[in-house]
Amino acid sequence: FRKQNRPTSELVDGVLKGDISALAMAITIIESRIDKHRVPSQEIIAKCLPHSGKSIRIGITGVPGVGKSTFIESFGSTLTSMGKKVAVLAVDPTSSISKGSILGDKTRMQELVRDPNAFIRPSPAGSSLGGVARKTRETILLCEAAGYNIILIETVGVGQSETAVHGMVDFFLLLKLAGAGDELQGIKRGIVEMADIIVINKADGENLKQAKLAKVEFSRALHLYPPKKNGWIPKVLSCSASENTGIVEIWEVIQAFVEESKNNDHFFSARKEQNKYWLLQSIDDLLKQEFYQNEKVKSLLVRMTKEVVEGKISPFTAAEELLKLSKTP
Amino acid sequence: FRKQNRPTSELVDGVLKGDISALAMAITIIESRIDKHRVPSQEIIAKCLPHSGKSIRIGITGVPGVGKSTFIESFGSTLTSMGKKVAVLAVDPTSSISKGSILGDKTRMQELVRDPNAFIRPSPAGSSLGGVARKTRETILLCEAAGYNIILIETVGVGQSETAVHGMVDFFLLLKLAGAGDELQGIKRGIVEMADIIVINKADGENLKQAKLAKVEFSRALHLYPPKKNGWIPKVLSCSASENTGIVEIWEVIQAFVEESKNNDHFFSARKEQNKYWLLQSIDDLLKQEFYQNEKVKSLLVRMTKEVVEGKISPFTAAEELLKLSKTP
Repeated sequence: FRKQNRPTSELVDGVLKGDISALAMAITIIESRIDKHRVPSQEIIAKCLPHSGKSIRIGITGVPGVGKSTFIESFGSTLTSMGKKVAVLAVDPTSSISKGSILGDKTRMQELVRDPNAFIRPSPAGSSLGGVARKTRETILLCEAAGYNIILIETVGVGQSETAVHGMVDFFLLLKLAGAGDELQGIKRGIVEMADIIVINKADGENLKQAKLAKVEFSRALHLYPPKKNGWIPKVLSCSASENTGIVEIWEVIQAFVEESKNNDHFFSARKEQNKYWLLQSIDDLLKQEFYQNEKVKSLLVRMTKEVVEGKISPFTAAEELLKLSKTP
Repeated sequence: FRKQNRPTSELVDGVLKGDISALAMAITIIESRIDKHRVPSQEIIAKCLPHSGKSIRIGITGVPGVGKSTFIESFGSTLTSMGKKVAVLAVDPTSSISKGSILGDKTRMQELVRDPNAFIRPSPAGSSLGGVARKTRETILLCEAAGYNIILIETVGVGQSETAVHGMVDFFLLLKLAGAGDELQGIKRGIVEMADIIVINKADGENLKQAKLAKVEFSRALHLYPPKKNGWIPKVLSCSASENTGIVEIWEVIQAFVEESKNNDHFFSARKEQNKYWLLQSIDDLLKQEFYQNEKVKSLLVRMTKEVVEGKISPFTAAEELLKLSKTP
């Protein structure tokens, strides 16, 4: 009896009952690249979809060293102690099963790992952001169907993953440290623009004064950004994840955001826009995947690329020839 | 006798002789979306390709108001007075024939417009960056075949066009104004990273002192950026385009860049990488174009999108269905 061969309806029943092992297995099927998991994977999603959507999806980013794991541990535990069910996911295309993503290192979240109301799942493996993002997005749906009402999605703060995560969450939280210079130390300016809240972490001990200063500075700087479409004015708060201070206040801001954006209907219209974005993205991914896996294309691509690189043929002409080739039976 | 029906070989002969009207007509054919221009367009490019490549391609960007037109007028005239042949192109996907791009307003470049050694061509019309960029890139090849040895490509400094232009030039020039704040006024941080030179324009009269200060500040800030692959350390200069001061110095920096990067072979390896980038980009564009023009896809896309938007079907499942549909005969 192989567990993975359980019929999907049984698995989905387990997910809907909030059974953690069923949820974990369903996610594994969705993440799988094995061909025989393709149909079950779509069935699971289709069946979970009507039960999804009833959570607050929160993206969390920040450069390495800012204390993301500690923050998620503290923030997540605060939420579960309020009776919430919290799922913690990650998008990190650079991670692989062997290397393990930040969240793979569960020892950093000792409290949350043992919390029956928390579900932690590391980033799906994969080298393409598109693939990783799609799987995470579908995992959100499954977690929601399993009754998790807060979804935290962590990302690494240095690449394009932020755009992907921003495109799947309701609220985007940027963790920072006090002290100038991190503008130039890896965080992209576009990420600051995405943030609905900037949280200055490690505001404790000797850092406290500097954190207060940074808070004032950021608040001032944020006023210079163009206003957000939903009318929300990003907030700046400070906290100490290790000392559990300032955490409840962050949750209050998020609640205010959700209330405001549900009142002016931006909450749901943003989700609709995200759905559309992911449709276009998925079409794009599938088109490319199919093209580059075509045997005829594969056999000619190397030579063609060489000719293009050496300027013997124009890139567009080469592209047209390859496309024509991909369609010959 | 319709001029557009001249055989392409005759047209190409004209281009190779440096005949401006032949060049303009060849570009018009390349920019055309009419089906009957497709084959001639490819012929023209194929015939010009072996004669292309012998120019310095320079991208110029900066937010509106920074004085790009005046700068190009001053810089371009300086170059032609040195005996260079200068082509000025633009990438601006927001422009259309009716609205006209910045370069369409040739009155801003009165001197250059009358200069027999300058060729000015506004941005091709088009709403997709991919299409506009491709046409500009092919226009570069034609201008080079026509003997232009400096190609200036202007872009608007606020969107994604910079990435496209950066992907088709040897050297990237960012125009700025003195005075803090433009970091927050629209120029993306990624663009600063692309720059091989930052030029602080309008360094004249009362601005002079502030421009000097800005120069020091930017030089300091640039040191914090990660070093460029080619080893080039971006320079910061100031100029006054309206008073023609500091312009020759900019040209000297570009010459130093070209010499250095030809010596360490990065000049040509960068162009090869660009060729490869444009091959992948063209494949991507063609795949999408074909998919979205498929009649079956067209007829179902609206309904499918609606269902995805309303959360009735998962984006990925919808994408798979649409793709399957696009392949049924």
